[in-house]
Amino acid sequence: MIIDVHGHYTTEPPALHDFRKRQLAGQTDSGREPTSTDLGISDEELVKSVERQRELQKARGSDLTIFSPRASGMAHHVGTEAISRQWARVSNDLIGRICSLLPDNFVGVGQLPQFPGISPRNCVPELERTVTELGFVGVNLNPDPSGGYWTDPPLTDRHWYPIYEKLCELDVPAMIHVSSSCNPNFHHTGAHYLNADTTAFMQLLQGDLFEDFPTLKLTIPHGGGAVPYHWGRYRGLAQALKKPTLAEHLLANVYFDTCVYHLAGIELLTKVVPIDNILFASEMLGAVKDIDPETGYYFDDTKRYIDQVEALSEEDRGKLFENNARRVYPRLDVLLTKRGHPRERVRATAAERAN
Amino acid sequence: MIIDVHGHYTTEPPALHDFRKRQLAGQTDSGREPTSTDLGISDEELVKSVERQRELQKARGSDLTIFSPRASGMAHHVGTEAISRQWARVSNDLIGRICSLLPDNFVGVGQLPQFPGISPRNCVPELERTVTELGFVGVNLNPDPSGGYWTDPPLTDRHWYPIYEKLCELDVPAMIHVSSSCNPNFHHTGAHYLNADTTAFMQLLQGDLFEDFPTLKLTIPHGGGAVPYHWGRYRGLAQALKKPTLAEHLLANVYFDTCVYHLAGIELLTKVVPIDNILFASEMLGAVKDIDPETGYYFDDTKRYIDQVEALSEEDRGKLFENNARRVYPRLDVLLTKRGHPRERVRATAAERAN
Repeated sequence: MIIDVHGHYTTEPPALHDFRKRQLAGQTDSGREPTSTDLGISDEELVKSVERQRELQKARGSDLTIFSPRASGMAHHVGTEAISRQWARVSNDLIGRICSLLPDNFVGVGQLPQFPGISPRNCVPELERTVTELGFVGVNLNPDPSGGYWTDPPLTDRHWYPIYEKLCELDVPAMIHVSSSCNPNFHHTGAHYLNADTTAFMQLLQGDLFEDFPTLKLTIPHGGGAVPYHWGRYRGLAQALKKPTLAEHLLANVYFDTCVYHLAGIELLTKVVPIDNILFASEMLGAVKDIDPETGYYFDDTKRYIDQVEALSEEDRGKLFENNARRVYPRLDVLLTKRGHPRERVRATAAERAN
Repeated sequence: MIIDVHGHYTTEPPALHDFRKRQLAGQTDSGREPTSTDLGISDEELVKSVERQRELQKARGSDLTIFSPRASGMAHHVGTEAISRQWARVSNDLIGRICSLLPDNFVGVGQLPQFPGISPRNCVPELERTVTELGFVGVNLNPDPSGGYWTDPPLTDRHWYPIYEKLCELDVPAMIHVSSSCNPNFHHTGAHYLNADTTAFMQLLQGDLFEDFPTLKLTIPHGGGAVPYHWGRYRGLAQALKKPTLAEHLLANVYFDTCVYHLAGIELLTKVVPIDNILFASEMLGAVKDIDPETGYYFDDTKRYIDQVEALSEEDRGKLFENNARRVYPRLDVLLTKRGHPRERVRATAAERAN
């Protein structure tokens, strides 16, 4: 089967956007606050809202999408911590309902009620609720809740440990994913996302986080930002900083997705990063929605690029499309095994076993 | 001949570091202020200080390095505007002396006295001085003088226009290059540099700067940050933002260097970016100084990677190693022509002629 580990709910019904508008307007004029978190969205509306995603899954040959609230919609820098808490809960509940209605198409990943300057300890209850009550298999963790000013500490700081402790306890991975940018220097999908990916990897390289959390698993989306393209630079920096090799230091815990929207980029990714550390993803419907006039296919139809990489063996493709995801998301593996999908090829890598 | 467009003076004599220390200490205790900007560094010391660079030029087969003050040393966020002015002047003067002493090895590029929140109009006199008095052929422009907090406006904002006007008038290009980071989230060479490259390109994509400055030339260093690896994303974003193609919108004015420290990265760069827009560079002695244990050669010996890319024709190599640099740095071309280096192959590209 083919698992896409990176999809956001970018086709939300208008009622969700209305709720958010009222929620934020309520900060200025309390008379406008939403009176209920029941959005009045029917199951039929929810199913209809993801029709396009299901069409594309079918057309492109993927089966299951790991699905989370719209990344730019999280906007942790907006409002207050209480606003973030309510917004995360409402957004996660919708994802939970979609995953219950269409369990063969979607498995949930949550949004956290982060807020700049606030300890992410405040996110632990919502993380726990999404996993134990809504059945989510992972979470999105925003390394810059300020939205482009980077005023919180690096991911290796103890500030973040409460989240990591809970992730390890629940055995779910985090995707390191920023939200929208309120800094005019950073276009969200054209700069802020990729910068955050690059930044997160370098923070992990500089630190020793996985000595404290040997079972923690983090995915860097968008093909790892600039990292695979500069793999030589990072190997050299690890050496200069007297760290072990990238493989020893990070690759039992850090994974990259395939949200890279041209063949040459996917070729590079699969050439320099070990296959065990690459997870199939397209971020559809996501950052780049159009058809590439050079190929006649959608930019974000990443499966097509992978299919064209001749150097990949059948075993590699099995890992990339399914088995790596089942290894990195153990709760997904349990779910799929229960549903009768065999799992004999899902084994820890040598790097993971060494931890 | 082989021109390396990106070298920084990272082997400065201790007297320069001492000056800087006194300059900054003087902000707290005026008794410590340096009494003179004459550092007392002899010509012999200067020549000796760049011995290693010249050895590596010889060993690697490059001829001329476009040489500027240490990028991380610019530290525009430190001190005051006056401090920045004095520091730029002292740093540029040293580069000017090295280029006079060793004209066959080095041609100068300047540092600007930028300061966060201050109009870069303040930089025009020093830019003019370095070009007309010191004979420099370009300048480094820091898109984030705050050192990692990105509090100044994007490069397409009119804030920056005084610099662009002077660059066009003098006919010199700028390399968009940040300095050190005072934000603990960003390692300078592992995150801040690459993020700034990615950010600058996306700002230019979002804007229409070259409609106002059709002859302005900007180089994005470090292989363009994340950009070539995500070339499909950027082509798609240009389309979604209703801009012309990347080639039409940006490639008559924007160039990438080859500071990418592994073969797969250089292969990708030369495959997706038109050869006319790639300038040979190694940033030596720079970001990554060690030997790559996988190859037995220095990570930053970028010529070796280019030599291994079989898809490049002799004409491509001529452009990449020499002719593009002479086109992008017209004052360098004048200089080399005077010195008897033929220039018959240096012609404007179709994209440049269309502007």
